Amino acid sequence: MDEARRGGRRPRPGLKLLLFLHASLFLNVFFFCYLVLSRHQPPPGWARSAARDAEAVAAIDCSGHGRAFPAGGGLPACECNACYSGDDCSRLLLDCPADAGSEDPLFLEPYWQQHASTSSIVLPGWQCMSSPTMGGDFISAELDRHVRLLHRAAENAITDGKFILFGSEVAELLHALVHALSADNASSSPACLVASAPHNPVSILQFNSFGRRQHECIGIRSNYVKGSVSPATKIIEYVTSPNDPDGLLQQSVLGGSAVIHDHAYYWPHYSSIPAPADEDIMLFTISKISGHAGIRLWWAVIKDQKTYQKAAEYMSLNTMVVSCDVQLRVVKLIRVVIAEMGKGGDIFEFGYRTLKTRWSKLHKLISSSNRFSIQPLLPRHCNYFKKIRDPSPAYAWLKCDVEEDKDCYAVLKKSGITSRSGELFEANSHYTRLSLVKTEDDFDLLTMRMEALVSKESIASS
Amino acid sequence: MDEARRGGRRPRPGLKLLLFLHASLFLNVFFFCYLVLSRHQPPPGWARSAARDAEAVAAIDCSGHGRAFPAGGGLPACECNACYSGDDCSRLLLDCPADAGSEDPLFLEPYWQQHASTSSIVLPGWQCMSSPTMGGDFISAELDRHVRLLHRAAENAITDGKFILFGSEVAELLHALVHALSADNASSSPACLVASAPHNPVSILQFNSFGRRQHECIGIRSNYVKGSVSPATKIIEYVTSPNDPDGLLQQSVLGGSAVIHDHAYYWPHYSSIPAPADEDIMLFTISKISGHAGIRLWWAVIKDQKTYQKAAEYMSLNTMVVSCDVQLRVVKLIRVVIAEMGKGGDIFEFGYRTLKTRWSKLHKLISSSNRFSIQPLLPRHCNYFKKIRDPSPAYAWLKCDVEEDKDCYAVLKKSGITSRSGELFEANSHYTRLSLVKTEDDFDLLTMRMEALVSKESIASS
Repeated sequence: MDEARRGGRRPRPGLKLLLFLHASLFLNVFFFCYLVLSRHQPPPGWARSAARDAEAVAAIDCSGHGRAFPAGGGLPACECNACYSGDDCSRLLLDCPADAGSEDPLFLEPYWQQHASTSSIVLPGWQCMSSPTMGGDFISAELDRHVRLLHRAAENAITDGKFILFGSEVAELLHALVHALSADNASSSPACLVASAPHNPVSILQFNSFGRRQHECIGIRSNYVKGSVSPATKIIEYVTSPNDPDGLLQQSVLGGSAVIHDHAYYWPHYSSIPAPADEDIMLFTISKISGHAGIRLWWAVIKDQKTYQKAAEYMSLNTMVVSCDVQLRVVKLIRVVIAEMGKGGDIFEFGYRTLKTRWSKLHKLISSSNRFSIQPLLPRHCNYFKKIRDPSPAYAWLKCDVEEDKDCYAVLKKSGITSRSGELFEANSHYTRLSLVKTEDDFDLLTMRMEALVSKESIASS
Repeated sequence: MDEARRGGRRPRPGLKLLLFLHASLFLNVFFFCYLVLSRHQPPPGWARSAARDAEAVAAIDCSGHGRAFPAGGGLPACECNACYSGDDCSRLLLDCPADAGSEDPLFLEPYWQQHASTSSIVLPGWQCMSSPTMGGDFISAELDRHVRLLHRAAENAITDGKFILFGSEVAELLHALVHALSADNASSSPACLVASAPHNPVSILQFNSFGRRQHECIGIRSNYVKGSVSPATKIIEYVTSPNDPDGLLQQSVLGGSAVIHDHAYYWPHYSSIPAPADEDIMLFTISKISGHAGIRLWWAVIKDQKTYQKAAEYMSLNTMVVSCDVQLRVVKLIRVVIAEMGKGGDIFEFGYRTLKTRWSKLHKLISSSNRFSIQPLLPRHCNYFKKIRDPSPAYAWLKCDVEEDKDCYAVLKKSGITSRSGELFEANSHYTRLSLVKTEDDFDLLTMRMEALVSKESIASS
């Protein structure tokens, strides 16, 4: 009986275990589902949804010939490189001219794609609701600090004890500087901004059309030497070094009282840096450093406090301020550039390697030609790389050597290459400028068309 | 024997179950740890780390009296509201003047904080590497489209069949427009930009200092009426409606051939919208709509194609382009504004409620005074809200009624209130402008100081 009772009472083996197991398995199913499903739900945190959207856009396949943007209704779309089309930029357009005219430094785009996670920035909806007071507010103070750090790290300019003035366009800074450098005010005693040909007059043209009456003469050195200027006029020399178009390092040649040095290209990817620049007034822009031509930011490094104050006053009076978004973005980009310097991800190393390869390809091609030639550039020691470096200019300054090729731009145009005529640089039309800073697609098309041109030549001669 | 063997062979009850259980429990622990730990690890995806950083910065406690920014070395810091200080902006500064001078529409900051997840944007490191070609590229086409959608949704302006020109500053657009409106070119036949007092001459001052020689006269109507202008001069009237400082809706009064309508404040949070504006040339800016004074973007809605083309040409010649970052950000903000319209999150409703409350508080306070008065504003029907709405102006146009209070600005200054003197609006110094669009902190301090002033009065009179 007892036995039986005990037998009857004895629980079936592992019943509790079974219950445990079921509970545990249920938990596992729950956790598993949670993990799987949560991948398809917006991650927690307000900024995460913006991140997810951005990742979704970036994941769009543009066949390596374009970039995706969030388009209308949130649907993203590809913006294709020149000569590519289709929803995914996969179609190469026939007879599409190679674009060697534009100055957008898209050769650095892959660099930033490689540094996506460190270089991307989230702008919260409530940021930038106060009007920027350049130098006065938090962000612009950070911008100033980072620009100084960058110059120190790149060893291309001395900023200690100097003042930095920021503007969206070079024309703004030129207005402010000429205003500050002229006696009392620009209208009473006109100033004359002169540059030596060949030079890229874009900034000077802007300047001209702005203040035509305000500033007496704008032009190239030869004009000036001809004595087209009244002795009362203040001469301000505009020196671009490395020079656009030919990439040569330049010095002031007029010995005028005031010189503005445009050092937009004085960075290790474009040029050797013999020594840090230390002139009284130096101009730089983010677009040539990081390659972001879409971000409008220039700055002037100014030695003299009075000049700085006058220029700053002029700019604030004209509310020439830089959007807070732009300032935040540039600070972020500069941080990445500095953090990666001297490491595997050095942007100057990346840029130098890319442009050096492009230059040597083109150089090899042109040297086999009797019809064309490009500017002679020699290897030079670079203070940044601490070694002799090969040339890696942003542009090739191409010359049509044959007499009948008077209009070199037209010669290339006829062969499907868009360049910038020498005349736009106040130089001879036997010259034209080829841009080497665009996408790999653009450069490949350029070399393809140049090869065709040069080979035609050899066929003709044989 | 068999029995025994069988007995020996018989597995202990639930051994397999036990093994199962252990395995399963192990999985429980694994999943649990994964879930918990993953909250402290950067989420996968390149944009997530940027999101995490932004969330970390936003989480900084600035005591509700400031906002945090990522500072040097990635360490964030608080930028405090006026009159607050300390690492966490918790310290109220004594004898700090109430800022009623500034125009930053920070009253909308809480709106964007409430819409953090939808209004924030990620800018990938590789974005914006091409120079913007306004209207030509992908982003600026999107910007144009969204601006039209916004005007249609807000019912404040008709853009169909019109052209939109974008610029960073109003001065840029004014240059381009006057250039386009003047015969052939601005220098040959000068133009005269005139406005009626009281008006906010900031934009006109900018304009003036830019093109002093290029455009003959800049000034207020009275100057013009005095016949200070040669008959050859083209008159361009500048009408601000709602007017800054007094918030009144204005019409053209000169009947001149060309009128530029500044509708920066013609939005439902500041004013009733009797009907969509449909003038030939209308100016707007994002900073008054969304409150982002740090984002520099203005646009002109232009009816005549020739005028648009001339103006656009002038701007592109002077590379007056809007940074790509700014364009992306504005498109995002406009998307949120449109998506929330007519719902609980309507920015116009939010802005209207805030400013209406501030105006009525101030109005009540001033009406108990014999020394001060403010502009009379009446409830009006609003086409957007489809109802009669109370006044909610951006500014109070305060008058010191007592004869001895000749300098109303100084009177307030002495009582710790910073305003903008009527003289800056080419008006009588008995007037001064009080800004109602700043933070709640600023407004509270303003009312506190005004109460003190008014109560002094009643003590004096009793």
